[in-house]
Amino acid sequence: MYPPLVLVLAIFFAVATAIAALSSPLPHPLDPLSPTELTAVRSAVLAFSLVASRPISFHYVGLDEPEKPDVLSHTNAAAAAILPRRAFVIARAGGLSHEFYVDVTNTSALRVVSHGIHDGPGFPMFTTEEQVAAGQLSREYPPFRESLQRRGLALTDVGCGVFSMEWFGKNEARRLAKVQCFIVAGGTANYYARPLEGVTLLVDVEKLVIVAYRDRAAYSVPKAEGTDYRAGKAGPPFNGAVPAPGVVVQPEGKGFHIDGHIVRWANWEFHVGFDMRAGTVISMASVHDADADLWRRVLYRIFVPYMDPEEEWYFHTFMDAGEYGLGVSAVPLQPEADYPANAAYMDGYYVDADGKPVKSENIICVFERYAGDIAWRHTGVAGPIAPITEVRPDVTLVVRMVVTVGNYDYTLDWEFKTVGSIKTVCILEMKATNYTHVDQIRDDIHGTLIAENTVDVYHDHFITYHLDLDIDGTKNSFIKNTIIPKHNTGVRATSGAPTPRRSYWTVLYEVAETEAEGQVNINGAPADLLFVNPSKKTKVGNEVGYRLIPAGATATSLLANNDYPQRRASYTKKQVSGLYAEQSTGDDNLAAWSKRRIKDEDIVLWYTVGLHHVPCQEDFPVMPTISGAFELRPFNFFERNPLIRTRPPGNSPNCSCSFGRSG
Amino acid sequence: MYPPLVLVLAIFFAVATAIAALSSPLPHPLDPLSPTELTAVRSAVLAFSLVASRPISFHYVGLDEPEKPDVLSHTNAAAAAILPRRAFVIARAGGLSHEFYVDVTNTSALRVVSHGIHDGPGFPMFTTEEQVAAGQLSREYPPFRESLQRRGLALTDVGCGVFSMEWFGKNEARRLAKVQCFIVAGGTANYYARPLEGVTLLVDVEKLVIVAYRDRAAYSVPKAEGTDYRAGKAGPPFNGAVPAPGVVVQPEGKGFHIDGHIVRWANWEFHVGFDMRAGTVISMASVHDADADLWRRVLYRIFVPYMDPEEEWYFHTFMDAGEYGLGVSAVPLQPEADYPANAAYMDGYYVDADGKPVKSENIICVFERYAGDIAWRHTGVAGPIAPITEVRPDVTLVVRMVVTVGNYDYTLDWEFKTVGSIKTVCILEMKATNYTHVDQIRDDIHGTLIAENTVDVYHDHFITYHLDLDIDGTKNSFIKNTIIPKHNTGVRATSGAPTPRRSYWTVLYEVAETEAEGQVNINGAPADLLFVNPSKKTKVGNEVGYRLIPAGATATSLLANNDYPQRRASYTKKQVSGLYAEQSTGDDNLAAWSKRRIKDEDIVLWYTVGLHHVPCQEDFPVMPTISGAFELRPFNFFERNPLIRTRPPGNSPNCSCSFGRSG
Repeated sequence: MYPPLVLVLAIFFAVATAIAALSSPLPHPLDPLSPTELTAVRSAVLAFSLVASRPISFHYVGLDEPEKPDVLSHTNAAAAAILPRRAFVIARAGGLSHEFYVDVTNTSALRVVSHGIHDGPGFPMFTTEEQVAAGQLSREYPPFRESLQRRGLALTDVGCGVFSMEWFGKNEARRLAKVQCFIVAGGTANYYARPLEGVTLLVDVEKLVIVAYRDRAAYSVPKAEGTDYRAGKAGPPFNGAVPAPGVVVQPEGKGFHIDGHIVRWANWEFHVGFDMRAGTVISMASVHDADADLWRRVLYRIFVPYMDPEEEWYFHTFMDAGEYGLGVSAVPLQPEADYPANAAYMDGYYVDADGKPVKSENIICVFERYAGDIAWRHTGVAGPIAPITEVRPDVTLVVRMVVTVGNYDYTLDWEFKTVGSIKTVCILEMKATNYTHVDQIRDDIHGTLIAENTVDVYHDHFITYHLDLDIDGTKNSFIKNTIIPKHNTGVRATSGAPTPRRSYWTVLYEVAETEAEGQVNINGAPADLLFVNPSKKTKVGNEVGYRLIPAGATATSLLANNDYPQRRASYTKKQVSGLYAEQSTGDDNLAAWSKRRIKDEDIVLWYTVGLHHVPCQEDFPVMPTISGAFELRPFNFFERNPLIRTRPPGNSPNCSCSFGRSG
Repeated sequence: MYPPLVLVLAIFFAVATAIAALSSPLPHPLDPLSPTELTAVRSAVLAFSLVASRPISFHYVGLDEPEKPDVLSHTNAAAAAILPRRAFVIARAGGLSHEFYVDVTNTSALRVVSHGIHDGPGFPMFTTEEQVAAGQLSREYPPFRESLQRRGLALTDVGCGVFSMEWFGKNEARRLAKVQCFIVAGGTANYYARPLEGVTLLVDVEKLVIVAYRDRAAYSVPKAEGTDYRAGKAGPPFNGAVPAPGVVVQPEGKGFHIDGHIVRWANWEFHVGFDMRAGTVISMASVHDADADLWRRVLYRIFVPYMDPEEEWYFHTFMDAGEYGLGVSAVPLQPEADYPANAAYMDGYYVDADGKPVKSENIICVFERYAGDIAWRHTGVAGPIAPITEVRPDVTLVVRMVVTVGNYDYTLDWEFKTVGSIKTVCILEMKATNYTHVDQIRDDIHGTLIAENTVDVYHDHFITYHLDLDIDGTKNSFIKNTIIPKHNTGVRATSGAPTPRRSYWTVLYEVAETEAEGQVNINGAPADLLFVNPSKKTKVGNEVGYRLIPAGATATSLLANNDYPQRRASYTKKQVSGLYAEQSTGDDNLAAWSKRRIKDEDIVLWYTVGLHHVPCQEDFPVMPTISGAFELRPFNFFERNPLIRTRPPGNSPNCSCSFGRSG
């Protein structure tokens, strides 16, 4: 990604309205903090006498979730009311990262119950306000004005953004960041395609001072023509392909119900939360077992904590979630474009740097997806009964959020299926950036020439999902069923009869004992990856489980293990991560976490969707979406296909129907 | 797959009505043979004096397509009328496989223009009639009656099917096949779950005699209870998950137009053909380039010639397309279950064993898919212009066929996207079969216990697609862009400035000179696979191309190279195949085809979708669909994103829209 740009002279920045506090009686234990609670948290932190330094800048405020056993035993609202509600706060004051836990159970008797200083490497996310302020520092800086003058540009012609400087071996005590600028004049909205090349500022985003300045070379300003993607600029004529308009109509209304943050649909029930860092958080997903008439839990929680440690060149190795925040960066969804007409939507709340609640409207949508797919079907063409066809069309429920971080748009879908599957889809979209100033590594051109003078650099995208699986209970194991070929030896029939076959394959069942054993590069030998509950078995004795099915985008990082971006983002090869991303060093992730036992424990899966992106001209000036996905699918979780006892659709002749002639 | 079953005493078999011949003036050169033409072909073959043996059994009749240059220069109907129309026929007579080419240009002056005998190994597809007849052979066979008696079964309780015996090293002169039987009594439609275990007949399907008989052991008959999948048997109560009914409404009507066999939609135009062996054949697919205002061809032809050489045990290594025929096995689609209400459909014609045309109704459908996806989007959150969001929702066009071969249902989708992509999706569905009689190989249980006494055996599915690519012309090359990591050495900046980075990756561009070089196991080193037209370049000099993107289901065969099923289906590791599948040996595929040059030639891609299937209980008694796919996506084919000059949807405020506040 590239960060949002800030005009040097005037600030045009989308700031959602800070709203008045609202009361929300009896929240679910996992409900995000309400505006009332967020406001109360701010008061408590500001009133906390042990931190006297001012200003206090709020970088993160979110729910400090109760322990899982407490949540699991207090799921109804009345019971939940007796659980304490606590907030976790990361704030900067006096050059330190403070962590606060605030009890907000009783908003009239608030208190900070815990306070600490984070003294490891890494800093919290940038606040919007400091990005705006840092982006404007160049304004009164004479060398910058001279740089513009040399290029024939006015101050109003450029906008600047804060780029995380990442980590290259040196632990900085200061919150330094790079500021780079782009031409915003010329009438195109595609600023990122027009960099102010050669100019880099190093700034202290906290003290708001310029630490270093470099104007390496005055390249010519890339032209604006052909870069805009807005309809009003691309046409008329609009001679691009326009399919016929269509809309999904649900004669009996929506099939799902939203009660607070709980969504109920078909055989699914789950909680949709929101976090300013992780964005959408799905919790307590349970599927109904029609045969057993039981609700059975599949996962406790899933969200996207880390996202896109893009491997570009030099310091461009961003970690969007940890550095800029997915929740903060979620954008209002556009009806009938970002989602179909039959959707419902939800709002979210985060805090500004001053700790005040900000409402983000319409950032999560929920809709039923009628894609024309088939859940199961069969045609029986012979037998004593007339020929039959049975078909059950597939309808799914999608929970969607779109996150925009600078030039990148991520569409994050969670798709629930009646067959018991949860499919997670990450759809990437980005605007091409003009990288003619690629100058760090020059063995080759390092990218594709996608337009005149515009090289789009090769890069990777890694999106890591955090899945706290609870397959029919909290104690689970991770199984690797490797598919093993057997050649020549071992091929025989029990009956003793000779068999002409010379090979076959079978399955090697292995339980991962430790986290280290649970690390899998899915591009290795073919294997089915299962999460099972070893204490629950089906009637015929199989361990109850779910299977992880990658669906494209299985790239893993090709960087050297000793390269700095790789050390920070070691989960792109190995799949675990920590909390302080910005300028983090990687010490808080893999190394400490590999020896813990994961057999028959409350395990967490970190799954990384990966894409190597070799750009092409179709990616200019704004690329068509590409996607990666994975699916969690029942594997001996149900006694049989859970859709067998499903009524055929409507009164249509589509099911149990005969065709052709018998004779 | 398992073959369709035939009742021993009474035939219940779906035979579509043979219809009267119709005239069809001025067909497109690739239009399938009309009923008039099929009828005429039969007359010509029967009148051909050099083949006197009777009966003549018709196994295949299809269009003998004109040479590609002729087709390409005769695409309008008037011009096409001057091209000869020819049929290709495979028929059996006098124990030989005859091949006829029949000129049907003038149906009043028909003639066989060529006749030959196929003398290599392998036989044509089974006809429906000989399967029915062979399935009934056991009826009057005393040992079979005794076998039934020993199990307490009546003749009316069982149905039998013809199983290809495949090839295990011995070239048979006779068309032998195995016949196995299933219990059709007991009120369940799930016959395949109830095998008549231990009983196998070896029959000559042409002479209709039993060659060998074996009743190894009398297992108990598996129970019928719990195996049925019909709504009337599964409920009430219907307590399975039923999403709300929904339907796609298109206020301005369908967006596509079907003119004969030509489909036009959005920026696509293509021809939909039908073949009794290959099923749906998509030809002459061209995409409109809005910037250049040109129609540009992407592929000449795509179809599924070989399908599912299932790796099970011993002889169960079926090749559905070659042995049973996808076109013949296509089933009438069920409205609003197999496809949405906004679809149109097409019929197909094949011939029966007597050579007479048979109409297959409603076997191909075409519909616009409104899945709620996004083609491209961007939110711009800063700049001198008010914050903007541009979104283009994604609508695609699907061409679908469902093929049922015994216990398998394949849904074959071709999905056309406005971004210029063609996505091919193969959705598998099968009914569990009761494999308690697994007795050929017993090192392990070789499968999953999916219900009481029911082991579903491990197996593979391979579906091979034939793609005659014409990327902006017929002469194309195949490029492998391997992603190569560069560690430590070679990491430097041109400016001479030190860089802290220790690794990066780049792309190694390789052109495949020969077919052997073009064979790729996509599970190897990460690589982008491109098909380019080296003689056509974009304005900035990139070769015009398309990229092949696998989407799941990338399994390759794990069988030994010297195992017989692998020798026949060598394309499951290597990707080429021949024409005579049934009892074929593999001599007509890879070996002879690997040395031909493919650089800057009219190349054909054989792409194999592969799935290792480790069954689970959810697959019983009928499994939810699983799928594999691949996409052909423009890669420097267009000068830029082809959807840039696309009008936003309707009059909605979804595009070029602002949100939030600026200030």
